[in-house]
Amino acid sequence: MRDLLGLAERKKSRLILALDFVSGDPAVFADRLLAALEPLVVGVKVGLPLALRMGFRGVCELVERYGSGYYFLADFKLADIPDVVREELALLSEAGFDGSIVHLFPMGLEEALSGVRGHDVFGLVAMSHAGSRLLDEHFEDLLRYASRLGIRGVVAPATKPGLVARARAFLPEDYLILSPGVGAQGAEPGSALRHGATFEIVGRSITASEDYYGAAERVVESQRRVIGE
Amino acid sequence: MRDLLGLAERKKSRLILALDFVSGDPAVFADRLLAALEPLVVGVKVGLPLALRMGFRGVCELVERYGSGYYFLADFKLADIPDVVREELALLSEAGFDGSIVHLFPMGLEEALSGVRGHDVFGLVAMSHAGSRLLDEHFEDLLRYASRLGIRGVVAPATKPGLVARARAFLPEDYLILSPGVGAQGAEPGSALRHGATFEIVGRSITASEDYYGAAERVVESQRRVIGE
Repeated sequence: MRDLLGLAERKKSRLILALDFVSGDPAVFADRLLAALEPLVVGVKVGLPLALRMGFRGVCELVERYGSGYYFLADFKLADIPDVVREELALLSEAGFDGSIVHLFPMGLEEALSGVRGHDVFGLVAMSHAGSRLLDEHFEDLLRYASRLGIRGVVAPATKPGLVARARAFLPEDYLILSPGVGAQGAEPGSALRHGATFEIVGRSITASEDYYGAAERVVESQRRVIGE
Repeated sequence: MRDLLGLAERKKSRLILALDFVSGDPAVFADRLLAALEPLVVGVKVGLPLALRMGFRGVCELVERYGSGYYFLADFKLADIPDVVREELALLSEAGFDGSIVHLFPMGLEEALSGVRGHDVFGLVAMSHAGSRLLDEHFEDLLRYASRLGIRGVVAPATKPGLVARARAFLPEDYLILSPGVGAQGAEPGSALRHGATFEIVGRSITASEDYYGAAERVVESQRRVIGE
């Protein structure tokens, strides 16, 4: 398993790239981005849309080809019954992913997560879209649940910086916070870090830019001003 | 798109087969089951574990090969932000699936679902495991939300028959109810139908049986006693 914080230190970056929306041939597109962005990007978040477009075998090849330089995060928003989540985590770990994002609202996951070795679990405690009323109502409940599970960290959105700050104040110190919603969804690069996030997840504002290297560089520069590098 | 209720009428069955847990080579296993069970099984539910094992391309081949005899339901428990759910539904529809299961707990899905054509959406309003406290607390809330969305139906577990009955009483008449949790998870075949479900989803008690045809036959016989065929 790749060392997420070690990579972040070495690259002086807190940027995780979301490969949700791609254009053209997805394999060619992903290849081009990952070959170029290694100096700036710490982790790569791969979700269902990319896997549906390029097939799981294609995604696994990507993980294998670029695994030495990136931390690979499987973002399938796992939200199934415990037996199935256990199976999914085992398969994603076997496929070479370093970590997975798991929804916590289905609950009942204690046993399914207790057997996970060599693979990080990040619990989703809030989402970036405005309409997520039920999740927001139960934010503290989900934080309490996350802190009991002994997982690597949580996902909380940069579009709701107050929630990021509350997560940081509430959770054990060694829990990481990953914040999506930076860029196309409206939050400024560096803003989630300022509220206590450990990493920012950025997708379209880099992947849809003609100058994706420049776009990634601007994100990392904003981050460095916050983390003092 | 295959006609789910038409297939059910023709086969005098309300059985949807869950291909979550397979043994041996997944492609060979799925092939063997689907070739044999067509007279008894109306729909096939394909989820992430199978897709991770045989690759999405493999799953798509299965859909193509057996699409004339089965309704194919994509059970990836979609639970992402609206933009991503919209993208996922378009890709699953394009891959040949007739319908998808979507978690309603994240909410905010009105717009993402409004553009879906030629592909059924089933909203998950409750889960089969005992620990799903938050979902159960908000069951009515989720039913109300489901009924506003104008979708094909909901998923409610056979292991909680009271919830199936409440869903039936609450939802518009034309909403279908799919009930997982029959067999390995404890509910008796036919029991969810008796409480108002339209279909029962059965996995391991058929797929893990040496005599899978006989196991499917027993499920369908129990169902026929309830639906009076």
